[in-house]
Amino acid sequence: MGDHVLSKLYVVGIGAGNFDGMTVGAVKALKNSDVIVGYTVYCELIKPYFPDKTYISTPMRRETERCYMAIESALSGEKTAMICSGDAGIYGMASLVLELAAKRRAEVEIEIIAGVTAAVSGAALLGSPLTSDFAVISLSDLLTPMEVIEKRLECAAKGDFCIAIYNPSSMKRADHLKRACEIVMRYRDPETVCGIARNIGRDGEEYSITTLKELALTETDMFSTVFIGNSATKIVDGKMVTPRGYRYE
Amino acid sequence: MGDHVLSKLYVVGIGAGNFDGMTVGAVKALKNSDVIVGYTVYCELIKPYFPDKTYISTPMRRETERCYMAIESALSGEKTAMICSGDAGIYGMASLVLELAAKRRAEVEIEIIAGVTAAVSGAALLGSPLTSDFAVISLSDLLTPMEVIEKRLECAAKGDFCIAIYNPSSMKRADHLKRACEIVMRYRDPETVCGIARNIGRDGEEYSITTLKELALTETDMFSTVFIGNSATKIVDGKMVTPRGYRYE
Repeated sequence: MGDHVLSKLYVVGIGAGNFDGMTVGAVKALKNSDVIVGYTVYCELIKPYFPDKTYISTPMRRETERCYMAIESALSGEKTAMICSGDAGIYGMASLVLELAAKRRAEVEIEIIAGVTAAVSGAALLGSPLTSDFAVISLSDLLTPMEVIEKRLECAAKGDFCIAIYNPSSMKRADHLKRACEIVMRYRDPETVCGIARNIGRDGEEYSITTLKELALTETDMFSTVFIGNSATKIVDGKMVTPRGYRYE
Repeated sequence: MGDHVLSKLYVVGIGAGNFDGMTVGAVKALKNSDVIVGYTVYCELIKPYFPDKTYISTPMRRETERCYMAIESALSGEKTAMICSGDAGIYGMASLVLELAAKRRAEVEIEIIAGVTAAVSGAALLGSPLTSDFAVISLSDLLTPMEVIEKRLECAAKGDFCIAIYNPSSMKRADHLKRACEIVMRYRDPETVCGIARNIGRDGEEYSITTLKELALTETDMFSTVFIGNSATKIVDGKMVTPRGYRYE
């Protein structure tokens, strides 16, 4: 076999899903891979840009299986990339891949390629809502107990953090965003500027700006990322802007 | 003059500074610009990739002047890009550009191009420390009063957020990181896994993993981004990993 070459596994954040939103390093890693593993929807998003690859996709909720498939693919000698939407680490697969590879004692070199997460790409669409200290909170209680999520919302509200909310709602938890807004309103003005970014970097991209009070009554979906401003956030020429604090004339 | 064409100003997050860390969209925007405005150090970082441009750079602390120069350049008809390290919005210039353009009633189309901020690129270097709800806090008290920063550290600690710390220290505030660790330790185990990413994406890139107790005694600099784990963060094969919560066998 000659020299021992460690198997290579990239864990790649692909950003929102459009080519322009990927990093140059992500494009290189995917070009350099033979096999691309991911959730079905994300594989479909990138196939047009990387057509000559073997794709292995699994539906949602099969994350552990998907990670093991990626590790096995890399161990078999195929250069493999596991893709995640947004960033590879932020609510992505990076930690699970690292844990499972260690558990298997898999001799795989894992390289994590960072990507633009929805808090960042959605913020750019809305204006500049996160230009001060901020918190990122997912309202999905599949993996985190609801009481932990609610505690975090309360702490973020008390600290006057700007807040980016992932997974604001789904069929099974239609009222999570409403509950989240109610918690934040205990500490923050109901007129606080808020924003919703939807289908970021994809067909149907859109954003809207609202108030915390109105946000509590708004229906969102799994393609939305929600932003709650801090006490200084304002609307500037139709954009959501949190001042950094510079003084100017 | 023919049809009126609105002046164009890009506000571009360039990521850590290496070409691979830029998004494809950032590269396109810079290629499409005639004038690039930025802090001297960031201009020097990207000049090798975009040599045939007019660069306008100002030193640190001249942010308002720099933004006005970018707006004036765009108004004069030059396609202009203002660059920020990391992301354009996160502790970047996007909000100030939007505010100043509105104040001047400048007829400029401002497009914000998101980038990979140090919390995300540093996390990828360390492993996967932010794979749960997290807070991003800057310890610089130039624009935010220290008591606000300390309150936020306390709230983030209480909420068991993973914490990414920007501007952990400088000459004038050598003890800020120590104070931050002491605040977090009121609520979190001194053995909590922490990490430091330094010179991300640049010459001398390095990372180290430590404990909260040790972090309080560690000297950092303005090229470092610091990560404090949550109560579940662990070391996996030498990497800092916050589990998302998946169960596996």
